[in-house]
Amino acid sequence: MPHPFDPGYVAEPFLTLCAGYPEADIYPSSQFRLEWGPIFHRGRLDGSARVLVIGQDPAQHETVVRRILVGEAGRRTQGLLAKLGITRSYVFINTYLYSVYGSVKAATRKNPNLIDYRNRWLNALLVGSRVEVVLALGQAADEAWQLWKATPPAQSVTVAYAPVTHPTQPESSSKGDRTKLAAATKKMLQNWNAALQSLSPSLDHPDVPTPFVLYGETWADGDRVPIPEIDYPAGLPAWMREQDGWAKRLGGDDLAKRRNITITVTKGVVT
Amino acid sequence: MPHPFDPGYVAEPFLTLCAGYPEADIYPSSQFRLEWGPIFHRGRLDGSARVLVIGQDPAQHETVVRRILVGEAGRRTQGLLAKLGITRSYVFINTYLYSVYGSVKAATRKNPNLIDYRNRWLNALLVGSRVEVVLALGQAADEAWQLWKATPPAQSVTVAYAPVTHPTQPESSSKGDRTKLAAATKKMLQNWNAALQSLSPSLDHPDVPTPFVLYGETWADGDRVPIPEIDYPAGLPAWMREQDGWAKRLGGDDLAKRRNITITVTKGVVT
Repeated sequence: MPHPFDPGYVAEPFLTLCAGYPEADIYPSSQFRLEWGPIFHRGRLDGSARVLVIGQDPAQHETVVRRILVGEAGRRTQGLLAKLGITRSYVFINTYLYSVYGSVKAATRKNPNLIDYRNRWLNALLVGSRVEVVLALGQAADEAWQLWKATPPAQSVTVAYAPVTHPTQPESSSKGDRTKLAAATKKMLQNWNAALQSLSPSLDHPDVPTPFVLYGETWADGDRVPIPEIDYPAGLPAWMREQDGWAKRLGGDDLAKRRNITITVTKGVVT
Repeated sequence: MPHPFDPGYVAEPFLTLCAGYPEADIYPSSQFRLEWGPIFHRGRLDGSARVLVIGQDPAQHETVVRRILVGEAGRRTQGLLAKLGITRSYVFINTYLYSVYGSVKAATRKNPNLIDYRNRWLNALLVGSRVEVVLALGQAADEAWQLWKATPPAQSVTVAYAPVTHPTQPESSSKGDRTKLAAATKKMLQNWNAALQSLSPSLDHPDVPTPFVLYGETWADGDRVPIPEIDYPAGLPAWMREQDGWAKRLGGDDLAKRRNITITVTKGVVT
């Protein structure tokens, strides 16, 4: 059975962007997990993307896979794209190149060098491209968009844009309270429905003609969509794509946890 | 500071080879760590390689990095290539796509499908290529070479060839006995010296003109050479290149160990 894969960074400007990325002087180690290296993208870099998603920060699964939004947040976003008929023609980048550790200071967020590097990615993906729709997941991503939108290269670009609630915001805001989780999920899906309604007319080239169906008040079957194999580097095993929880940060204290990623092959794969 | 990286599998025939690889029917899960996926190569796939190295099996560091021979065996081999003046124009593939678990049965080793797939890599790297020298690390790699050498496409290929002792054979054969280790190291370096003497006249295009200096009776300064950053995928942190021991298989029993890779950032990188 063939295993399509993402060839990664094979042409300019991505070769240069991935060889010369911001380091500790721009992303302080006190605010970012610099030690695991930058993680750049997921999806199409060959000019075929119709939708650009600006995400937030990469976590432990993303660190192993070296692609962003490969966990639950990724599957939910994949489902949102599927409702627009987009199954393949998308590209994701993150607001931050590194996973956030603690919180990001305003001075860091507004560092012109941090913004410039991100804008070079946005220029590469948007100026003169086929992208019709841009989605920002969460507030930091929205800010990233606004900062780019104010630059000269952005003036030539006409795309539909919607900032949406981050796909795992319901979990992070409800902290284990099931009633709060249900309410936050409902609120997020309403927010996503509004985005679908505003973006859908601008998406002229879906991958798959798709009847327009909004979200209900909670997740329905099919709302979470697996991340396609073609988004992963060559040779990664199937269990890395199929569910979360195979990569954890373990350790007896904060430093030990920070220094660790423990990978465990999903139960039942080896016996 | 720019961080050159290996773009990986960007052109044919490597796109096809890395999308359609042998799986459980050819590499039984009882003999190979199939669960971690295949690991294909390290080095130049752009036709610039002058030396091809056939290695043995990928271990835990290689599994995380998704490139082969990135640990101690890799650094020793890198040193051997440096003595030939080769610092960049090389490519490594493995005898087996997956890490060996236990031992490999003769029926597996001699499976025509296993051999055919490997031969497709050897054809891609050797037929009509610039390769002048082929090195095989260990017996299984030597067998792989002989099996390819007997095929029709190999008949058009003229290269110098040497099978050498596997670079960590001294450690694996001496099992902690320092006297045995010293003797095995001496013996291996003699074996490598013989290979250098036999191969050196055939290497017409070194990367760096290099005075011909053989190994002594034990490792000398400079005999172990760091693996260049350009051999790694984009964005991997420096500590993954600098020393071994950051990836371990931990667990209370064989199955738990088999299902685990624990990554620990090298001490001092995060404080």
